[in-house]
Amino acid sequence: MFRKEIKVLDCTVRDGGLMNKWQFSDEFVKSVYDACVEGGIDYMEIGYKSSEHAFSRKEVGPWKFCDDKDIRRVIGDGEPKVKLSAMCDIGRIDFDDIPPKEESAITMMRVACYAHQMDKAISLAHHCMDRGYETTINLMAVSKVNERDLNEALSDIAKSRVPIFYLVDSFGSMYCETIELLMNQYKEAMPDKVIGIHAHNNMQLAMSNTISAIIHGANMLDATLLGMGRGAGNCPIEILIAFLKNPKYRLLPLLKAIQEQVLPWQQKIDWGYHIPYLITGALNEHPRSAMAWMDSEQKNDFVSFMKSMHDYELLE
Amino acid sequence: MFRKEIKVLDCTVRDGGLMNKWQFSDEFVKSVYDACVEGGIDYMEIGYKSSEHAFSRKEVGPWKFCDDKDIRRVIGDGEPKVKLSAMCDIGRIDFDDIPPKEESAITMMRVACYAHQMDKAISLAHHCMDRGYETTINLMAVSKVNERDLNEALSDIAKSRVPIFYLVDSFGSMYCETIELLMNQYKEAMPDKVIGIHAHNNMQLAMSNTISAIIHGANMLDATLLGMGRGAGNCPIEILIAFLKNPKYRLLPLLKAIQEQVLPWQQKIDWGYHIPYLITGALNEHPRSAMAWMDSEQKNDFVSFMKSMHDYELLE
Repeated sequence: MFRKEIKVLDCTVRDGGLMNKWQFSDEFVKSVYDACVEGGIDYMEIGYKSSEHAFSRKEVGPWKFCDDKDIRRVIGDGEPKVKLSAMCDIGRIDFDDIPPKEESAITMMRVACYAHQMDKAISLAHHCMDRGYETTINLMAVSKVNERDLNEALSDIAKSRVPIFYLVDSFGSMYCETIELLMNQYKEAMPDKVIGIHAHNNMQLAMSNTISAIIHGANMLDATLLGMGRGAGNCPIEILIAFLKNPKYRLLPLLKAIQEQVLPWQQKIDWGYHIPYLITGALNEHPRSAMAWMDSEQKNDFVSFMKSMHDYELLE
Repeated sequence: MFRKEIKVLDCTVRDGGLMNKWQFSDEFVKSVYDACVEGGIDYMEIGYKSSEHAFSRKEVGPWKFCDDKDIRRVIGDGEPKVKLSAMCDIGRIDFDDIPPKEESAITMMRVACYAHQMDKAISLAHHCMDRGYETTINLMAVSKVNERDLNEALSDIAKSRVPIFYLVDSFGSMYCETIELLMNQYKEAMPDKVIGIHAHNNMQLAMSNTISAIIHGANMLDATLLGMGRGAGNCPIEILIAFLKNPKYRLLPLLKAIQEQVLPWQQKIDWGYHIPYLITGALNEHPRSAMAWMDSEQKNDFVSFMKSMHDYELLE
């Protein structure tokens, strides 16, 4: 599966932080950074870029904001040894929160939006480009968007200057045929842009959906150490790297970070394949109800969780 | 993904028993049986059929032998409410160990073999058919078989009376393109036979490889509750059933058995996705070294495990 255009982006801290409110120690973030550097990973997403007024620092850790002073404390001075990215959620950040590239260790801003926010997303992405950043737009929850709205969003993206656009399976509800269909639709709408893939693992299909996306032309691949990420988590980067067998990547540094830093977190918080996440994924629903259930005393009462879901008869 | 020819076979007790030497309580086996009956599953594989002299009953539980008296203790008298199958390993069973169908609650005998054992497998399978059973041949470890030997094995099968032949990913080393290639090869060699799929989850691809096999014509699908099975385990039956959305299957009874009986076992033994299994899968090796590592004190030292593997530089 070698293709020189392929880039891998580790988003352990950003997506994994959704499970612990970004309460990572500096040691954890440094360990992920070192693993990315030594593993030859192309990008490391170190968190969200957010407005101070959108979240309270009493509740969320520093990687919800990605101030340069926090980044520098972890990676030191000088040019970062792996390109860093941060994600911007439409509505949680203002233009003024994006510093000029010269003042930041971040290389890439990824703008996440829903279909109805596409105009705002393009506007923010253009602003980031004008400030000197590489930029992507990540259209979330596309599995809920109707065809007409999707075509309009794709047409808007196609006309924009933004060079990279992501296929995002927010709810972990897709499988290979869905991926093929959307990849073909995205490529046709914007033949000159790079397409990325960001998968979730509700039906244990994150890795295979990433492979399907590669086969159909995706060249930016999101993944996380041990799949750490919201709910069922993401495509595990160690599987992806073992699969790609591309000499620019190395697996051992990733395993080191997993055993030293990520595994202890897995014993504390429940990301990964669990039945409640399967159920929301198979129903094409946001994982929030499953996450709440997994936080409750009755987390292992799967029958009751399923019965609590609207429309559960679809699976019964 | 509806296709009326599709049959699902639960092999929780048989493949899961490889992790605990079939030391299941009757209550466990009854719970799986009830789940299969109420869930509309087509076959339940209740264990191995083996010669008494091949294994010691001091070491392995009754489901390594599947005596009718043990089966009856669990399922009661009368016609079984789900078709039962048992697996026969070439070299571990004699012709005389196969009772006439009239004396057994088992409906199907599945003969597992390596490529060099194909003559013996066909001979045993014909014997089982003559005794009145539905029969399959499951060619294991095909990822290690060279093209010439595989073609000879497929040609032998094609000429046999055995109606069902399985694509088996013993080491969990395949992905969608491997599955497509082998499915096409199997179908071409034996256009009149039913093809089955038995996947392992070393690279989190068991579910997606099962989907790929369905797309390319497989109609017998092996799966287990919560993926319980050797090493990284199998395709989780609850994901498969949620995915198929076929009204003949029901998910809730499967979830009930999982939460009541299977989950407690998962807290005791380590099947499922773990890094050592990923490494043997990605290297196309038997999982035995990973299983030994997972049983050791150093189970979470993934770096040392990888370095202990011959040829690990392929992944390094």
